[in-house]
This record gives sequence, C-alpha cells and structure tokens, in this order.
Amino acid sequence: MLTLYYEKSTCSLASHIALEDAGAPYALKRIDFAKAEQAEPAYLAVNPKARVPALITPRGILTETPAILAFIAQSFPSAKLAPLDDPFEFAQVQAFNSYLCSTVHVAHAHRMRGYRWVDDPAAIEAMRKKVPKSVGACFDLIERDMFKGPWVMGENYTIADPYLFTLAQWLEVDGVDPARTPRVAGHRRRMLERPAVIKAIAEESAL
Amino acid sequence: MLTLYYEKSTCSLASHIALEDAGAPYALKRIDFAKAEQAEPAYLAVNPKARVPALITPRGILTETPAILAFIAQSFPSAKLAPLDDPFEFAQVQAFNSYLCSTVHVAHAHRMRGYRWVDDPAAIEAMRKKVPKSVGACFDLIERDMFKGPWVMGENYTIADPYLFTLAQWLEVDGVDPARTPRVAGHRRRMLERPAVIKAIAEESAL
Repeated sequence: MLTLYYEKSTCSLASHIALEDAGAPYALKRIDFAKAEQAEPAYLAVNPKARVPALITPRGILTETPAILAFIAQSFPSAKLAPLDDPFEFAQVQAFNSYLCSTVHVAHAHRMRGYRWVDDPAAIEAMRKKVPKSVGACFDLIERDMFKGPWVMGENYTIADPYLFTLAQWLEVDGVDPARTPRVAGHRRRMLERPAVIKAIAEESAL
Repeated sequence: MLTLYYEKSTCSLASHIALEDAGAPYALKRIDFAKAEQAEPAYLAVNPKARVPALITPRGILTETPAILAFIAQSFPSAKLAPLDDPFEFAQVQAFNSYLCSTVHVAHAHRMRGYRWVDDPAAIEAMRKKVPKSVGACFDLIERDMFKGPWVMGENYTIADPYLFTLAQWLEVDGVDPARTPRVAGHRRRMLERPAVIKAIAEESAL
C-alpha cells in the first residue's frame, strides 16, 4: 500500500493522477496548507522540506514530483506510463518533467511564494507582476518546441501528461490566457476526459 | 559518440563528470555565456531554452541535468552510477537530484539571474541579498536530512554525487561559509580526489 500526502491545487495532483493511471493501491492524506500543517512537526518528520507531495512506500518515503512519477511508472510497468526499456526516450520524458519542476513551477511560485527568495515586500509585489510574462514564456516554449501531441511525448501517454496537466491548470490564476497555447489547451481538455483525472480531481474536491 | 554543450562554472559540470565516471566516449563544445552564445540561433537550434547542459546523442538531443545524469547511468550500466534495478533506490537518487535542480540551483540563480523573475532593479538587488540565507538553508537541509555519507546515497557513489559537488562549488560565491556544512565540505574534498573530477575540471579550465 502507498500513501500520498497531498494538498488541493498543488503539484501533488500529478502524482495522484499517476497513481490512478497505474492502478496502484493507495491512500490519501491531505496536508492543509491554510492551517500550515506542512510546517508542523508531524509532517516535517515525513518531509523536512515542508512541501507536498510525499509518497509513503513500504521501503520508505519519497519526495519530489519527477522522482515519484518515475517511481510509479517503474513500479507498475504494465500500465506503460513511461518508455522504461529505452534510456533515450525515458530521458526525454524526464527532461520534460525536469523543466516543469525547475522552471515552470518555479516561475509560477513567484506569485504566491516570493518570500522564499526575497524579504522586501515591494520586491515580492514586483515578482508577482512578472508571473504572467515568465509563466507565459514557459508555456510558449512548451507549445512551440516541446509538446508533440496528442500527448506530451506523442502517441503514447506518459507520466509527463499528468504533470503538464497539473501545471497548466494554473494558467488562469497566473494571468496567462490559455488560448495563447492552443495545443496545451487541447491537452487539458483531453486529460479532463480521462477517468483517472476525473477521479483524482473528485477525490481532492471531496475530502 | 556523445557531445556535451557546456559552460564553465555552470551546472553542466555535473554531466561532464558523470560522462567521465561512465567511461563514455564524448566530445565537448563550450557555449561562451560572456559572448551570449547561448542565445544565438545556432545554439537555440540545439536547446531553445538557451541553457546548458545539452547532450547530443545519436538518437537526438537531451537537456536538463537530472535527465542527462539518469541517461548516462542507464546507458553505461557497468559503471554502476545508479541503482538501476531498484525503483525505490533509483527514485531516492532522482529525488535528491530533483531537489538540487528545482530548489538549490533556483535559490542560487537569484544572485545572477533575477531578471528571469522580476524587472525592477531594486527587486533584483533585494533578491541578491537573500541568496546567502536561501542557499544556506538548502545546504543545511542536505547536511542534516539528506546526505548519507560518505557519498550522497551512502556507501555507493551515484549520479547524485557529481551534481551535489557542482552546486556545492558555488557556496563561497553565494556567500555561504562551507564550514557551516562539514559533511558536504568533506564530500567536496573526496570528490576532488577522484580522477574523473580532476579531469573534467582540467578540461573546462583549459579550453
């Protein structure tokens, strides 16, 4: 059994969807950011980084979305969530996910979590102003150079798909018009037709 | 044959060291950031993200340090640079590398590349001021909770080692006293005794 620590409207949705895609047995535990539960000792013992997701496995705890996604793909190979037998194609999936975590998610985080990188309130506000431009530029690059279609990597659905979907859900609140990147918008629509995505979103809305 | 596009004093050193560790056949091509070569059309055709590293393989181009490192480990399994047959242990390596790219490198980047996230010069200066604190906090976490020793993952050297070494090389310029994290400092010293590290640094210094 696996247990996913998650919070609504965060990047943990990607791992949640992938667990569904994999047909994995799992339980959910919500960490309520509004109550700052991520900074309480009980959760810091799970993840000292005070972030979600964290995945509890029989072997121990895993963190970081790209690592958890690859772990799910490798642990449930029959779900075919990544090209596991081809190091080059696997690396392409990983490169996409690494871009999402290190550049796209980081650009987005400057809207709500500027305090990570600066103390001055005026600078935090200045950061917020650039988010539509910096996040928009990331999605322009994905639209033009990285997204193959109909899924991120082409004909085969992979662990890059729930991750892109999760971050693309934030476009509106980041001030980026989704119509600007029509291929990414089409991907969001296709994802929303998948039972795994519907179930994951419903579970997170209900709890 | 592989070709690594790199720049001195950047995170591409991690991939360079890993290629040496793997005994891989490779060539080097420097992208001179002082001449803004990363933004020239010739390089944007290689990596539209205008960053290093990029690894040219017979199958195509790979970017993003965590993806390249895992690719090297999987492509040269006899070098034993990752626990390839154990999805959980592999995920632990990947989680470490993902933290380096999405949090540690990002904290560091606020010293020199604040323009990515803000336009106001005063805000860029305010960002620079917090770098010693934010980078220091990352290394505190690594020292206390993540680094197993003598190598990152314990007894076995992995692709997490050249990546940690590469980012730890920036501690002084980021205003963090290396003595603050003695286990990481010991790791740097051990890395500097390895022929692969000595050769990679010498190659980048000479060209």
